[in-house]
Amino acid sequence: MVSSEFEVRRPVLVGDTADVYHQRTITILRNESMNPAVTMEFAPEKGGVLCGINEARALLYRILPESASEVWALGEGVKMDPNEVVLRVKAPYGSIGLYETAISGTLASSSGWATAARQCVDVAGETPVLAIGARNIHPNIAAEMDYASVQGGCVSCSTIQGARMANVTPAGNMPHALNLIIGEVVKAIEAFDRHMPQEVPRVALVDTFRDEAEDAVSAARSLRDHLRGVRLDTPPERGGVSPELVREVRARLDLAGFRHVEIMVSGGFTPDRIRQMVESGAPVDSFCVGYYIASASPIAFRSDIHEVDGRPMAKRGRIPGVTPNPRLDRVM
Amino acid sequence: MVSSEFEVRRPVLVGDTADVYHQRTITILRNESMNPAVTMEFAPEKGGVLCGINEARALLYRILPESASEVWALGEGVKMDPNEVVLRVKAPYGSIGLYETAISGTLASSSGWATAARQCVDVAGETPVLAIGARNIHPNIAAEMDYASVQGGCVSCSTIQGARMANVTPAGNMPHALNLIIGEVVKAIEAFDRHMPQEVPRVALVDTFRDEAEDAVSAARSLRDHLRGVRLDTPPERGGVSPELVREVRARLDLAGFRHVEIMVSGGFTPDRIRQMVESGAPVDSFCVGYYIASASPIAFRSDIHEVDGRPMAKRGRIPGVTPNPRLDRVM
Amino acid sequence: MVSSEFEVRRPVLVGDTADVYHQRTITILRNESMNPAVTMEFAPEKGGVLCGINEARALLYRILPESASEVWALGEGVKMDPNEVVLRVKAPYGSIGLYETAISGTLASSSGWATAARQCVDVAGETPVLAIGARNIHPNIAAEMDYASVQGGCVSCSTIQGARMANVTPAGNMPHALNLIIGEVVKAIEAFDRHMPQEVPRVALVDTFRDEAEDAVSAARSLRDHLRGVRLDTPPERGGVSPELVREVRARLDLAGFRHVEIMVSGGFTPDRIRQMVESGAPVDSFCVGYYIASASPIAFRSDIHEVDGRPMAKRGRIPGVTPNPRLDRVM
Amino acid sequence: MVSSEFEVRRPVLVGDTADVYHQRTITILRNESMNPAVTMEFAPEKGGVLCGINEARALLYRILPESASEVWALGEGVKMDPNEVVLRVKAPYGSIGLYETAISGTLASSSGWATAARQCVDVAGETPVLAIGARNIHPNIAAEMDYASVQGGCVSCSTIQGARMANVTPAGNMPHALNLIIGEVVKAIEAFDRHMPQEVPRVALVDTFRDEAEDAVSAARSLRDHLRGVRLDTPPERGGVSPELVREVRARLDLAGFRHVEIMVSGGFTPDRIRQMVESGAPVDSFCVGYYIASASPIAFRSDIHEVDGRPMAKRGRIPGVTPNPRLDRVM
Amino acid sequence: MVSSEFEVRRPVLVGDTADVYHQRTITILRNESMNPAVTMEFAPEKGGVLCGINEARALLYRILPESASEVWALGEGVKMDPNEVVLRVKAPYGSIGLYETAISGTLASSSGWATAARQCVDVAGETPVLAIGARNIHPNIAAEMDYASVQGGCVSCSTIQGARMANVTPAGNMPHALNLIIGEVVKAIEAFDRHMPQEVPRVALVDTFRDEAEDAVSAARSLRDHLRGVRLDTPPERGGVSPELVREVRARLDLAGFRHVEIMVSGGFTPDRIRQMVESGAPVDSFCVGYYIASASPIAFRSDIHEVDGRPMAKRGRIPGVTPNPRLDRVM
Amino acid sequence: MVSSEFEVRRPVLVGDTADVYHQRTITILRNESMNPAVTMEFAPEKGGVLCGINEARALLYRILPESASEVWALGEGVKMDPNEVVLRVKAPYGSIGLYETAISGTLASSSGWATAARQCVDVAGETPVLAIGARNIHPNIAAEMDYASVQGGCVSCSTIQGARMANVTPAGNMPHALNLIIGEVVKAIEAFDRHMPQEVPRVALVDTFRDEAEDAVSAARSLRDHLRGVRLDTPPERGGVSPELVREVRARLDLAGFRHVEIMVSGGFTPDRIRQMVESGAPVDSFCVGYYIASASPIAFRSDIHEVDGRPMAKRGRIPGVTPNPRLDRVM
Repeated sequence: MVSSEFEVRRPVLVGDTADVYHQRTITILRNESMNPAVTMEFAPEKGGVLCGINEARALLYRILPESASEVWALGEGVKMDPNEVVLRVKAPYGSIGLYETAISGTLASSSGWATAARQCVDVAGETPVLAIGARNIHPNIAAEMDYASVQGGCVSCSTIQGARMANVTPAGNMPHALNLIIGEVVKAIEAFDRHMPQEVPRVALVDTFRDEAEDAVSAARSLRDHLRGVRLDTPPERGGVSPELVREVRARLDLAGFRHVEIMVSGGFTPDRIRQMVESGAPVDSFCVGYYIASASPIAFRSDIHEVDGRPMAKRGRIPGVTPNPRLDRVM
Repeated sequence: MVSSEFEVRRPVLVGDTADVYHQRTITILRNESMNPAVTMEFAPEKGGVLCGINEARALLYRILPESASEVWALGEGVKMDPNEVVLRVKAPYGSIGLYETAISGTLASSSGWATAARQCVDVAGETPVLAIGARNIHPNIAAEMDYASVQGGCVSCSTIQGARMANVTPAGNMPHALNLIIGEVVKAIEAFDRHMPQEVPRVALVDTFRDEAEDAVSAARSLRDHLRGVRLDTPPERGGVSPELVREVRARLDLAGFRHVEIMVSGGFTPDRIRQMVESGAPVDSFCVGYYIASASPIAFRSDIHEVDGRPMAKRGRIPGVTPNPRLDRVM
Repeated sequence: MVSSEFEVRRPVLVGDTADVYHQRTITILRNESMNPAVTMEFAPEKGGVLCGINEARALLYRILPESASEVWALGEGVKMDPNEVVLRVKAPYGSIGLYETAISGTLASSSGWATAARQCVDVAGETPVLAIGARNIHPNIAAEMDYASVQGGCVSCSTIQGARMANVTPAGNMPHALNLIIGEVVKAIEAFDRHMPQEVPRVALVDTFRDEAEDAVSAARSLRDHLRGVRLDTPPERGGVSPELVREVRARLDLAGFRHVEIMVSGGFTPDRIRQMVESGAPVDSFCVGYYIASASPIAFRSDIHEVDGRPMAKRGRIPGVTPNPRLDRVM
Repeated sequence: MVSSEFEVRRPVLVGDTADVYHQRTITILRNESMNPAVTMEFAPEKGGVLCGINEARALLYRILPESASEVWALGEGVKMDPNEVVLRVKAPYGSIGLYETAISGTLASSSGWATAARQCVDVAGETPVLAIGARNIHPNIAAEMDYASVQGGCVSCSTIQGARMANVTPAGNMPHALNLIIGEVVKAIEAFDRHMPQEVPRVALVDTFRDEAEDAVSAARSLRDHLRGVRLDTPPERGGVSPELVREVRARLDLAGFRHVEIMVSGGFTPDRIRQMVESGAPVDSFCVGYYIASASPIAFRSDIHEVDGRPMAKRGRIPGVTPNPRLDRVM
Repeated sequence: MVSSEFEVRRPVLVGDTADVYHQRTITILRNESMNPAVTMEFAPEKGGVLCGINEARALLYRILPESASEVWALGEGVKMDPNEVVLRVKAPYGSIGLYETAISGTLASSSGWATAARQCVDVAGETPVLAIGARNIHPNIAAEMDYASVQGGCVSCSTIQGARMANVTPAGNMPHALNLIIGEVVKAIEAFDRHMPQEVPRVALVDTFRDEAEDAVSAARSLRDHLRGVRLDTPPERGGVSPELVREVRARLDLAGFRHVEIMVSGGFTPDRIRQMVESGAPVDSFCVGYYIASASPIAFRSDIHEVDGRPMAKRGRIPGVTPNPRLDRVM
Repeated sequence: MVSSEFEVRRPVLVGDTADVYHQRTITILRNESMNPAVTMEFAPEKGGVLCGINEARALLYRILPESASEVWALGEGVKMDPNEVVLRVKAPYGSIGLYETAISGTLASSSGWATAARQCVDVAGETPVLAIGARNIHPNIAAEMDYASVQGGCVSCSTIQGARMANVTPAGNMPHALNLIIGEVVKAIEAFDRHMPQEVPRVALVDTFRDEAEDAVSAARSLRDHLRGVRLDTPPERGGVSPELVREVRARLDLAGFRHVEIMVSGGFTPDRIRQMVESGAPVDSFCVGYYIASASPIAFRSDIHEVDGRPMAKRGRIPGVTPNPRLDRVM
């Protein structure tokens, strides 16, 4: 049962987030005493990974009269083709019209994020990818983005609410702020080790004050077996996180006897940069991706009426009648 | 007083939308009994139109201890340069640390939308631009996007909640659904005219069943002086809304004696397409822009600590100490 | 016997269309009492489809002294390689010199058109292609172009004289003028049906006044089984004839029960646009191509003397002596 | 009076070169007893130099009933803008319909050639340009092309018929054939000198057997003051006619005391190559242009009905009613 | 008197470095008792900075019979145009023929280096440029390259022999080897300070073990006023030497009170990267350029005979006779 | 034993061609009484053909204390990968430090030339390639370039000293100067034939005065069986040496009965132009390459210390410790 996972916010329910012309249409048709059953189909303009369908269904369950409605849908997280119908709703127009904007928008944003995440995951191969984009997107949807990233294949995400929705443990260890306030990377990771529960992995952020290789070895010398890994987040002005840097840090850690310490990388990673890293053979243990997912363009969804009271009907430019798609399951 | 316009949602206040490592840092520092005053600066990686600063300030007013804090900011809707500090907060780390994610994210998304809107408005010149992107974005932030579009220069927007935040009248007349259910454009605009209040402009959507010019003249023949305008939304498969189409519709309306009927255009408009339309001299009376604004990439904001307890301090790659910016005003 | 098909116009025969320096050369050599046998070879600078060879042979039969001349040639409509000799003439210079310009020019223009036609036919696959370029080229050669198009693979052409030369039935049904004068597409096709002989197929041009799909269904409703097809000629300003339009017209005709009505398309088709249409799978029944063939660049032909009185000879940049080509047949 | 210059060929007059559907339309309308006056406008899809208007007028004078017709036109050889009406005919449809194809085609081909010629002339500046393209085009229109080249600005052309139409002296001296048959450049130019009338300039073609500079000096040594110039026609395989070659031939001629001998160049010249030559300052005395003009794409002309029996009327995509153009003169 | 600066090596003098065909020509002509005076001109195929002319003159002084020879030349280090004659030698062929290869080669390499140096100097503006390319080029010509770099505008160079030829003090302080062997940057610069003469500036190389900014401040804290500067040579894998890095090192040095310490940069600088640095306004005090100059393509020089025994003469493709150039001075 | 082939020049031995900072480092370390054994590795930044290793080894044999040193190297002329260690030296720093510049430079220049030569040889396939670049490079290294070209695969080279080093017979027959002084190609090749020893092949340079094909046949008619070949060196202004020219010269030679005469080509050949020639099938018998090899960029070599007194050590950006390379052989 998908509906419980998603809170439907009040402005959505009352239509305050809908395009105003849908409200006007509801009013006009009521005054004309018209409320035909319509068949509305939602299809993406580009292919990608479908996401948001569960949230859309949660909304539909709240608003549709069960006796007079039918819903067919694809599943959350599946691949969808361009123009493929992913959701078909047959319902009285008075019940569904006001929510066309919300359903399209939910699918558009969520599928955009999930598709971007999937692109990263696909090129990363065996290496896990974490979603850390919250700082690049409005907090009202940071959790939805994190949820979509996990649907797209990320192993975890950085916000507490997003992780809860996606049913994973949130990921993230130490920001630059901790290093800067404590004043030294080694002291910071020691404080982290002192106060954090056992199950939180100790991962030192080693680019704040000194050369990355130097601080990685220092952190390892201090925490030894307690240290799970180091995170490299070198900014572009210092060459970013290159395959050569990862290899050198690995070599210097190994030379000092710390083969167990993992290397996590972050900082502007995109599918292209992940691919270069993977193809270079550099020993990365996990990738963190933020801006690339957060800045994914929404995938626009067409929502078109194809039947009115059972008669094939469509605006110019569309084919009248139900569009066949054997992949759809009836979900209501 | 800006704070009243923006509701601060509970998950933001309790830190559920923050990157989890900020929560961990708060815990560690509390256990270490450290709570230094930090000076944190927010600066965009690219230039653009600043937006979200009022919402960020509303949050800061809720969370900062007034006696121990200082805030400097630029104004909502102003132009900002790459790397220019737009917000500086001096506060005990324990009060501000948890909200770094939310503030960055608010500025990133809102400035991205406002900048995209401004690009459209700048090329449109005298012709008004309306924001109609809600159907392409998650409903949880459709209103924020509409608000940002108006800050960027749009004259109105399509959602009720967005229009309320931006203090404008929502715009939008007739969707394809109304035409399809009523079955003819002329009957649809007549029903619209019957049931809508006087102050809602009558604008017929004339691309649903027949050729645009044909239906425009028919609608004008029916409503005559009541008709404020027609909207062209021709899909790309039928050539989109080209300068030639606008000119021909104008000519046929004029030939039939309807010089007062305005022409509103929509359908995939971007700054490039608006520029082509404007440069062609085609007589467009208003532009509707949806996907271009809704798909604007967020503008990433750096948030860096530059002082700790009054001492200049910065991570590698940043200049320690406060970054001078005479444009900043002290707002708290 | 090829010569009967082609009239040789008088200005050509008297040398008025030749470069003047050939006339001067004839005069000089006569005064010098020189009239050696020369071997002249014609070869294209680019590969393509050879056309005009029959017309050239018709000219040669008129002008050469049969006893003292030999002619080898490839066949009309075959593929030719760059620089391949397609025509070799051995004759007294006094008999052939004046006609070098005409022969080169005939081959150049005709091969250019035939090659362009072949490119369209090749990408169209099973779907027939019709040549309708006459309105884009001088009427003095419209028929020659149509003849060459059929040699290149078109099933028919639009001019009466061209069709006669190529031995096909001319193609073409209804221009916009008929619609405009009668004032309605349905009435126009009804008039067409009343007054045209049985064997002329009824094909309605459905883009003149209304939406294409609307008028296609109207025409079909009127003529029913008499209607052979509809022609779509939508201008680029209205999106041209796209795969989506063809598919929608097909669907709406089928929905109305007119599966037998064919769809013919015209309007700026090039090999690229034909390929896109074919690859899209849109159900086109025939392609009309005009400007692409009419604007084909002529294929320049070199005409070089390779022997003089049996001695190998050539200008700088050419190989002296006869150029071997086993594909050539002796035709005189 | 322009009509006398142009012979109207019989197949054009009887409509054999027209698209067959125009003949069908004439039949249908006659059977329907319809013969409204129509206003037909011809306008080019691209800008350029208008040519063929005199030939079109000659045709119109033959076919239109003077009492019931009006014709407006621009002048031969003027600049025309894209979509500018260059010819407007108001006549009974039964008199004009059959000739729409011929008029469009005449304007299309002729304007294409004249525009290409003008491009060459414009970049050549003070240096004269000669049209020598006949060998690259069908002899049925070689003269029309030469006529159009002179309208475009060429000082002369190579065919006798073309020169007669354009009222210039035909240009062209010696082909490679003369050199090859006589066997030496010097002997060839001497024979030329012996047998040609005084007024034909002596210009030796100096690239046939030996290096150009060597043979230029040899020819000059033989004819001395009789030699008007040399022509360089070096093929691309030998570097073509480059500025360096022209400069060297000039220098070697000057060194040998033949400053009066002019240098004429030919061989694949285009506006780009003419510009390079001119900008290099190489001392060229005249340019010969062949293939560039002969291969010019026709400029497609739209021919649209804008009035039927005085009522504004137009197909979809065109503006009904007469298109104003103050540059038009009434010519009938 | 330029000849003393340049040693002429024995293999050059005996012709062992000449193309062997020149030796053969000398032998043949001697056997034929031919030794005409020839005028030979040297001209570059591209423009640039002329260098090597003094070395060429030193050779000419050794080999030419003064009574029977004349030499004209441009000056060392001046700008030269493409194809401009920079050296003209009139001498018996038996004296000059064997050295054509050496003279061309000397001018080609030296002008290539000087031109590359000049490009760097031009974009660096007021900031001095040092040539440090020796490690990228064969030691047999490292000094010649350094000499040419100074002629091109560099203030100094890194090899002792090159500096001697160019009459400057050699530049260069501390290689990575010194840091690595001593084991710490601070100790290394202290040893440098202890053992180097007063006049050698103390410049610490600060990228070997730690972050550049950190080691720059440490070196300054140790040598204080003795420290003249720091050199940044960060490899591309660590972001290279970016404007941001220079600015941060400057800021951290200033913050620590060491405003007098200069910043010298090296590592793959090219005119493009120098320009970016200069345009960014980053406070660089000197640029070191190595590979860009060392890898400069030689500028090919044509050497052509233009007179033989006073008669104008030239191979095909060249203008016979002396090429006028008023900039040339007679130097012998 | 490789050392005997290479003279080590005195300025190299005394360090005058070294970067001055190496001399300073030697002084400082001596004063500090430090002379640790270091392991220095040389590796190219790009892949290519290794050359100069024998010359480097000759230098090492002169300078290293045999008892305290070890040297590993790849062989002369082998392929090397980017960043592959091609030379490893373990020696007291005091013995090796001063020569780092010379060794890097020797490898850089020589490998650059050999790699360029190999590129030509690879595309030329079976056809031999000769190195004739001496005139484009400083005479101090012309012989080294020629030696490297032969290591790269050229069958011979043009300088006497280079040929001696590479143990081949020098190649080169007749310069333009011989033609110009004697005044005719035929007389020049006859003089050549009279005075040159039997074993020097007779190859006439046939582009100086007349057309290449003409002079080739003339030279063959004169020397008949004595003529080994002709060389085409046509400058770009005359079309360069194109496949068409080679084919025509071949045809005219064959037609005249001189099938034994070979065709050698020169003039700006690069791998691209060699490939075009080879792919065209033109009958070239040998290629001469000059500027392409002479202008090859040096391949920069890193020289890094990886051990100091047996301890792994490296500057930032390098991996400490010996870099494994099983292809290295111990050579000292």
